[in-house]
Amino acid sequence: MLEVVSEARSHGGRQLVLRHGSRATGTPMTFSLFLPPQAEQGRVPLVTYLSGLTCTHANVTDKGEYRAACAAHGLAFLAPDTSPRGEGVHDEEGWDIGLGAGFYVDATQAPWSANYRMWTYVTEELPALIAADFPILDMGRQAITGHSMGGHGALTVALRHPGRFRAVSAFAPIVAPSEVPWGEKAFSRYLGDDRASWARHDAVALLKSGARTADILIDIGTGDPFFAEQLTPERIERAAAAAGQPLSLRRQEGYDHSYFFISTFMAEHLAWMTERLR
Amino acid sequence: MLEVVSEARSHGGRQLVLRHGSRATGTPMTFSLFLPPQAEQGRVPLVTYLSGLTCTHANVTDKGEYRAACAAHGLAFLAPDTSPRGEGVHDEEGWDIGLGAGFYVDATQAPWSANYRMWTYVTEELPALIAADFPILDMGRQAITGHSMGGHGALTVALRHPGRFRAVSAFAPIVAPSEVPWGEKAFSRYLGDDRASWARHDAVALLKSGARTADILIDIGTGDPFFAEQLTPERIERAAAAAGQPLSLRRQEGYDHSYFFISTFMAEHLAWMTERLR
Repeated sequence: MLEVVSEARSHGGRQLVLRHGSRATGTPMTFSLFLPPQAEQGRVPLVTYLSGLTCTHANVTDKGEYRAACAAHGLAFLAPDTSPRGEGVHDEEGWDIGLGAGFYVDATQAPWSANYRMWTYVTEELPALIAADFPILDMGRQAITGHSMGGHGALTVALRHPGRFRAVSAFAPIVAPSEVPWGEKAFSRYLGDDRASWARHDAVALLKSGARTADILIDIGTGDPFFAEQLTPERIERAAAAAGQPLSLRRQEGYDHSYFFISTFMAEHLAWMTERLR
Repeated sequence: MLEVVSEARSHGGRQLVLRHGSRATGTPMTFSLFLPPQAEQGRVPLVTYLSGLTCTHANVTDKGEYRAACAAHGLAFLAPDTSPRGEGVHDEEGWDIGLGAGFYVDATQAPWSANYRMWTYVTEELPALIAADFPILDMGRQAITGHSMGGHGALTVALRHPGRFRAVSAFAPIVAPSEVPWGEKAFSRYLGDDRASWARHDAVALLKSGARTADILIDIGTGDPFFAEQLTPERIERAAAAAGQPLSLRRQEGYDHSYFFISTFMAEHLAWMTERLR
């Protein structure tokens, strides 16, 4: 049952914020959905955007500058939250674990496993929910993108669902979480010591083990403070080249990790997706 | 002396947030300034945006979606705060008075008069400061705009500085503050009982008393909850028609008072200004 938190007309379409009780996480979950003006005439493709550490649906909804391009191209734009939230949801100190930091996995380790089931949420429950409630969404024409932790989410979700997405992009993604501090911290807590379970949530490891997806476009700023230690774009360049996975990875001179960076290239990503969603 | 609070590359230009000690308000003041890529080659026109009630520089900087258009047209974009802030600055309960609600006047009534001198700040001190610190700004080519209380500010600043601005726009402005609850509350506290002093800060009253400015473009949403009681667009339509002041006022179907509305029409306003700044 979807509750409308807010609705506003924007760029000729409707910017919705919606809430529902999630079976996957056992909590209320809030997300935003932009419906372009074309959705009043017929079915429209869906772009899912997975957000980064500390974010909710609101960051990209406020700062992402996606609505003008979505209205121009006729794209719906879905932005889920990054973790379960609410009373009783386990958390720990630090903005890189717990609330706002679900890392798009189903936690197997207590106490995280009670609620931190973002993989099931974003890959199964939420798509089924909006497909049922918004029949104007053409779930046969989907693209996915994300930022940082959400770029990791977009890449791994796409690599493990071949055929679901016609285009995959990311802004400054964590491409090899098993090998960098953010991912090691999160995966050891959520997934435990079994590194085989980590590999199923690691885009570089998935490429090495034979997974493939549609064309990938990645932008990363050369002024990103997390470039070398956490994002390591050279790892996915090497893995994609070895695997024959189409990848365009662009180093954008002087850009940082913020929405000032994301919003700069958002319209290009959406135009690039549109070519592949036709 | 300008302190750089933050700087980020965005849309090919530089989004700055700056702070300085203000002589006008007697407090530190923070503002944002976007410099488009063209500012690396030569002088660029300046658009000043005055924000609405409760806002700081940050709202439009985050949500205004102005950078893509400013980069396309080569416009700098300045966003001041809406009031003095800090310890010792008087405030009262309510988001429509005091902090975040300076109404772009120089208060004459104690205790407000100590710091609430936003008229002098936005018309004199801040323009002089940035002109000196950023010689790439072409202060001979300026436009001004604003939202709600800031639309009131933009209209009154422009009407009282004929020749300074080549284009004037506003999003859902308060056009006749002397005659609506927000303005009556603010003006009675800041300016006292002398209604002649109110008229100098009332766009409709200024038009009636002979003030004129460059072409005015106003957008207002028909779904704006403040449309009839606070914004009263028909008052400026009548006054501009009687005065022969060029005004294009558009009622935008279904839009509300939020940045979802402002961001929708921001690019059009900036393109419209650009034609007049050539």
